[in-house]
Amino acid sequence: MKRNNYYTLFGFNNTISVLEANECLKINVNLVRGSKSEQNTKLIKLLKQKEICFKVIEKKMFIKKFSNEHNQSVAVSFYYDLVKTNIPDFFDKKNSCYLALDQINDPQNFGQIIRTAECAGVEGIIYSKHNSVPVTNSVLQVSQGAFLNMSIFEVSNIKNEIKKMKKFGFWSIGVENGISASDWFDLDYKGKIIIVFGSEGKGIRHKVLEICDFKGTIEMQGKINSLNVSASVSAILFERLRQLKITT
Amino acid sequence: MKRNNYYTLFGFNNTISVLEANECLKINVNLVRGSKSEQNTKLIKLLKQKEICFKVIEKKMFIKKFSNEHNQSVAVSFYYDLVKTNIPDFFDKKNSCYLALDQINDPQNFGQIIRTAECAGVEGIIYSKHNSVPVTNSVLQVSQGAFLNMSIFEVSNIKNEIKKMKKFGFWSIGVENGISASDWFDLDYKGKIIIVFGSEGKGIRHKVLEICDFKGTIEMQGKINSLNVSASVSAILFERLRQLKITT
Repeated sequence: MKRNNYYTLFGFNNTISVLEANECLKINVNLVRGSKSEQNTKLIKLLKQKEICFKVIEKKMFIKKFSNEHNQSVAVSFYYDLVKTNIPDFFDKKNSCYLALDQINDPQNFGQIIRTAECAGVEGIIYSKHNSVPVTNSVLQVSQGAFLNMSIFEVSNIKNEIKKMKKFGFWSIGVENGISASDWFDLDYKGKIIIVFGSEGKGIRHKVLEICDFKGTIEMQGKINSLNVSASVSAILFERLRQLKITT
Repeated sequence: MKRNNYYTLFGFNNTISVLEANECLKINVNLVRGSKSEQNTKLIKLLKQKEICFKVIEKKMFIKKFSNEHNQSVAVSFYYDLVKTNIPDFFDKKNSCYLALDQINDPQNFGQIIRTAECAGVEGIIYSKHNSVPVTNSVLQVSQGAFLNMSIFEVSNIKNEIKKMKKFGFWSIGVENGISASDWFDLDYKGKIIIVFGSEGKGIRHKVLEICDFKGTIEMQGKINSLNVSASVSAILFERLRQLKITT
């Protein structure tokens, strides 16, 4: 096992997702004693059926063990070889979409992006190793199980990876707020594409943006001029799906 | 002053937004001693210029006072009569969009929805008083100043309010995942509309959904089948803007 691939998540949904995935190893569940909920009963049944190691412990002990401030009464710990470093060099799908995240540093945003990407049929997410939040427990907690169905790649040089994928027939699209670029819905998201998003404060770095084949922007309608990056991702990915649906 | 309209938010962006808004009263700022950042200098200059009361205190004292776990070194406290209870009975805009939130209970989601709605030109947000997260500090913190540019209404009976707005020429659209309904992009979002979203776990309550003139759904492409409600809001609101932009 590599280091950093041991995770602990909270809540019934996350726990059940982990139990049902085949890739998670050495799963260990802690439950708070006294919970009589239907979810709890269902979970214990599943744990026994799958012969997964679990403990029922007092609430005080649970809080001490996990310093968990949320009102959750179940924790699941597991090994999972989630983050890959080599992007495949074979892409067989006609409409294939990858996201490239250039230095996203808020775990809440990263987790939400994984979740939205999974719901929108994205195949993989590439993120820059340096100056990005890594895949932490908080990131996975927010993703609500979506990480189990998403290929995630950590790369040293996001620009080089985009260039490499362009050789395999991908187009790259950089999305940035407040720049002079096409309206987001005027871009063509069909075919093999990589959509690039930048960090919360700084956007896409200049040297990454300059290799994008197309640039898109979402014009702000209000005064604050700062759409959250995960909200931008959602707007773009569902515009992509709209385009795919109306042409098939 | 009514109760519950005293707020404390953290961070430079929030503080500057509050200072620049005319509606916030009795503003009080606490800064951590020793910060030499450009933002800090800019903020102190603005505080002096606007003659706003502020204190520079030790980091330890700051943490003790605000129990603030985030790495923020500025807190702004203020009175603001944010939440209204009476929806206006005059709507003059041709394309007017309100959101109705039926029992959203996660502050992160509520805050994100306010932020996205502001960026997408929504005029107001209506939320149900019962079984919803109220407008707390956490909600406003996440909204990143967007709340200062958004009308927010707390109502006892969301169904009655939708009915009332329908009398003023609004169409209502309920958006729900996993129901048999039109694709989200096949709905017409032009004109006066109220878009209804339901709670994270349960969706829109049956009695609220049944008075919606139109129903839309976003078909999930992955396995998890649970797009976050704030991500759904983003997908829908930017589809609305696309429709408005291509027809004007």
